[in-house]
Amino acid sequence: MFEIDQTHDPKLQSWVESANVAGCDFPIQNLPFGLFSNKPGAAPRIGVAIGDKVLDLRMAALVSSDDMNALMNATPAQRANLRRAISTGLARGSDQQKDWERALLDQSAVTMHVPCRINDYTDFYTSINHATTVGKQFRPDNPLLPNYQWVPIGYHGRASSINVSGTDFKRPKGQTKAPDATVPMVGPCKRLDYELELGWFVAQGNAQGDAIPITDAESHLFGVALFNDWSARDIQGWEYQPLGPFLAKNFASTLSPWMVTMEALAPFRDAFTRPGADPQPLPYLDSAENRLRGAFSITLEVLLLTPKMQAAGKAAQRISLTNAANAAYWTPAQLVAHHTVNGCNLQTGDLFGSGTLSGPTPQEAGSLMELSAGGKQPIALPDGEQRTFLEDGDTVIFRGWCERAGAARIGFGECRATVLAAAV
Amino acid sequence: MFEIDQTHDPKLQSWVESANVAGCDFPIQNLPFGLFSNKPGAAPRIGVAIGDKVLDLRMAALVSSDDMNALMNATPAQRANLRRAISTGLARGSDQQKDWERALLDQSAVTMHVPCRINDYTDFYTSINHATTVGKQFRPDNPLLPNYQWVPIGYHGRASSINVSGTDFKRPKGQTKAPDATVPMVGPCKRLDYELELGWFVAQGNAQGDAIPITDAESHLFGVALFNDWSARDIQGWEYQPLGPFLAKNFASTLSPWMVTMEALAPFRDAFTRPGADPQPLPYLDSAENRLRGAFSITLEVLLLTPKMQAAGKAAQRISLTNAANAAYWTPAQLVAHHTVNGCNLQTGDLFGSGTLSGPTPQEAGSLMELSAGGKQPIALPDGEQRTFLEDGDTVIFRGWCERAGAARIGFGECRATVLAAAV
Repeated sequence: MFEIDQTHDPKLQSWVESANVAGCDFPIQNLPFGLFSNKPGAAPRIGVAIGDKVLDLRMAALVSSDDMNALMNATPAQRANLRRAISTGLARGSDQQKDWERALLDQSAVTMHVPCRINDYTDFYTSINHATTVGKQFRPDNPLLPNYQWVPIGYHGRASSINVSGTDFKRPKGQTKAPDATVPMVGPCKRLDYELELGWFVAQGNAQGDAIPITDAESHLFGVALFNDWSARDIQGWEYQPLGPFLAKNFASTLSPWMVTMEALAPFRDAFTRPGADPQPLPYLDSAENRLRGAFSITLEVLLLTPKMQAAGKAAQRISLTNAANAAYWTPAQLVAHHTVNGCNLQTGDLFGSGTLSGPTPQEAGSLMELSAGGKQPIALPDGEQRTFLEDGDTVIFRGWCERAGAARIGFGECRATVLAAAV
Repeated sequence: MFEIDQTHDPKLQSWVESANVAGCDFPIQNLPFGLFSNKPGAAPRIGVAIGDKVLDLRMAALVSSDDMNALMNATPAQRANLRRAISTGLARGSDQQKDWERALLDQSAVTMHVPCRINDYTDFYTSINHATTVGKQFRPDNPLLPNYQWVPIGYHGRASSINVSGTDFKRPKGQTKAPDATVPMVGPCKRLDYELELGWFVAQGNAQGDAIPITDAESHLFGVALFNDWSARDIQGWEYQPLGPFLAKNFASTLSPWMVTMEALAPFRDAFTRPGADPQPLPYLDSAENRLRGAFSITLEVLLLTPKMQAAGKAAQRISLTNAANAAYWTPAQLVAHHTVNGCNLQTGDLFGSGTLSGPTPQEAGSLMELSAGGKQPIALPDGEQRTFLEDGDTVIFRGWCERAGAARIGFGECRATVLAAAV
C-alpha cells in the first residue's frame, strides 16, 4: 500500500507553471487536500493545492459533494484513483487543462478552514527526547516513566478549539501555584509555549469492539498536517496530576490547512528501528512492514516573529529544525494499532497529534520549555531580544517538507498563529 | 433562572394515565428529552418521555426539525416556553389531547439513541471521597493531591465510544504489567469496573477566548443523564502516567437515553457548602447563587445482575446507593466556569461526566474498585456468588431519581449494559 508510482515521478510537470518552480511546497507530486471558501460566509469547498493555486474539485467534476469527511472515508483504492485522476489532469499536456483552468483559484484569494470535521482528537507523546527532557523538569527524580518504552502514551484532547493556521488566540488565564506559594492564584499564563507536532488524520474508521491490526493500520490514515499544540506550562504544572493536562492545552491548537496524503509521502519512508538495548515493540505494535518503512522523514522548522522584529521589517527567525523520523519513538501505524487494541472506534476525520517532535540534540527541541531549559536559559533573538516563553504579539510559524534524492520535494505550507493579550 | 413554577406543581396530572402512577420516572413534572426511532434505519426523532409513552415533538408540532442539538441551542427563555407548552398540552383537560394522542408511541416499541450529537466529552473527578479512596490504591503515600481542593480536576474523554443504554460491549484488551513482572503483557482486562456518574449536557456554547462567568454558567447547561464510565483498572494502572487515563476508559461508556432538564431539577437544589477547614472556592468558582443552591440532590443506585442470578430468575441486586449532593465536591456551575476560564469554547451537546459519585461512607462507593478495596475484599451476592471486578455476562444497571417533600418525584430511567467476552 502507498507505493511509489507514476504520480511521484520527479520529472512530472504541471501546466500550472507555479507548481514547477524549485522549492514550491505544492508541486504536482504533492496534491494535498484542504477546505477553502472564496467569499465570506460561503460553505467550504474541497480543494487541492497546486503551485500557488487551488483546484476546486467539484468544479473540476472530480467529486460530487463538498464533504471532506466523505472523501476521506473512501477506500484506499478509490483514493489512489482520485490521486491519479488529479495528477493526470494537472500534468502538462493534459486534455483537462481547458476545463480545469476555470476550476483554479489563487491561494492568496481564498480563506482556508480546518480541513475536515474532527470528531475526536487524540494527542500522543511519541518523542522520547521530549518525554525525557520535559520529564526531568516535572519529575527530576523520575524523568522517563517505566511504561514509556512499551506504551505509545496518548491522551484525549479538545477538538472544538482546533483552529486553522492564521487564527490568532488570546493568552489563556487559569490557576497556577508557585512552588513556594501556599495557595494558587488566577491570572494570565506566564509560561506560554508552542509544541511542534504533526497531526495525522484518520481515513476509514473501525467498528467499536474491533481492533485494527498493525498490518492494516496505515490504510486507516488519510494524511498529515503541521500541528501546534499550544501549552500553558504553569497551568499544566499545577493541574496535570493525576488525570493529565486539561486547561493547559484546550484553549487553542493550530493546524496547517493542507492534508498531505499518505500517497504523497510514499517516497519519504524510512526504516523504523530501536536502539538494541531498548525493548522491542510488543507483537501488536510490530510488523515487517513497520520495521521496513514505518517512519516518515519530514523536516520540521520552527520560526519566531516578535513584534519588534516585525516593526523592524525583519523576517521570522528559525529557532529549531528537526526531522520527524529522528524524533518519533512510535510510528503512525503503531498509534492506530494501539488506539484500537481495546476496541476503541476511530471515525473518519479523527486527528492524532504526534506529540512534540523533539529530535535527539538540544537544538532540535520542539518547544520553548526545552530550548530554554524550563525558562532558565533564554534563547537569543536578533537585536538583543531574548525569550524564555512566548510574549503577547509573538507569532510562531511551523514549516515542513520532505526531500530526498530521486524524489520531488514536497512541502506542507505554514502553520502560524499570533498570541494576543489575555482577556481583561 | 430555573425557578420552580406551575410546571412543577405536584398536583398536576396528565391525560397520559401511566404518568400519574406513583413511582413512575416520567410524570408530567419531569418531561425529559431523548432521541428515538420507531423502525430500523429510520432517522432519530425528538421525543419527550411521559409515563410509559414518548411524545413525538415534531408530530405534536412543537418543533420543526429532529435536530436535538438545535433544540438544545435555544435560549433559556425559549426552553422554558417549550417546557410550558409541553406541560400544558399533556395536562389533564388540555385542548391538545386529541391531536397529541396520535403523536404518542409506546416506549417499549421504540429504539432509543444517544440523546444528542456529542462533540467533545470531558470527564471530571468531582467526588473527593472517590479521589481519596482510589488515590490510596494508586498512590498509598499521596492519596489526595494538593491541587484537588482548588482545581475541579478534569480531562478529555472519547466521544465516539459513548453508547446509549442497552448497548453491550466486549471486554477490552490491552497492556498491563503486574507489580512483580519485568515486562508488560497483552490480553483481556482482568479488573473491569463501572463508574457511577452523571452526564451533564451543554446547551448554548461560548466563543473561543471568552470565559463563562459562574453567574452565567447554569444557563449553558441543558440537562443531565446517568453515565457509566466503564474502566479497565489494570490497563489504567500501567498506562496513566504521566498524561492520564486513555485506553482504560475509551473502549465504551454508557448513557441513559433521557436528558432530565435543568428546569425539571429546579425543586431538587441544595446549598453547596464546604467543611470549614477546607479552602473555599476561588472567586471565579464562587457565587452567592452557587452557595445557595448549586448542588443537586439526585439519588443514585447501582444494581448488578450476574448470569447466575439471571438464570435463576433473580432480580438485579443493589450494590450501592448514594446521592450526588453528598458526593460532589464541585457543582455543575463550577465545572462550566472552570472549563472556560482559559477561553476554551464549549459547544452545544458537549458532555461533562461528573466523575465517580462516591458518597462519604464505604457503602456509597460508585465503583467496584472502592467496594472491593481494590479487589482485596470481594462483595457478597445472593446464592454465595462474589465479585471483586466484573465478569463476562455481568449486567450493571444505574437508576436515579429525585424526591423531596412538596415536590413530585422524578426519575432518570435506566443506564444499563452487559459485559461481553473479549474478542478472540
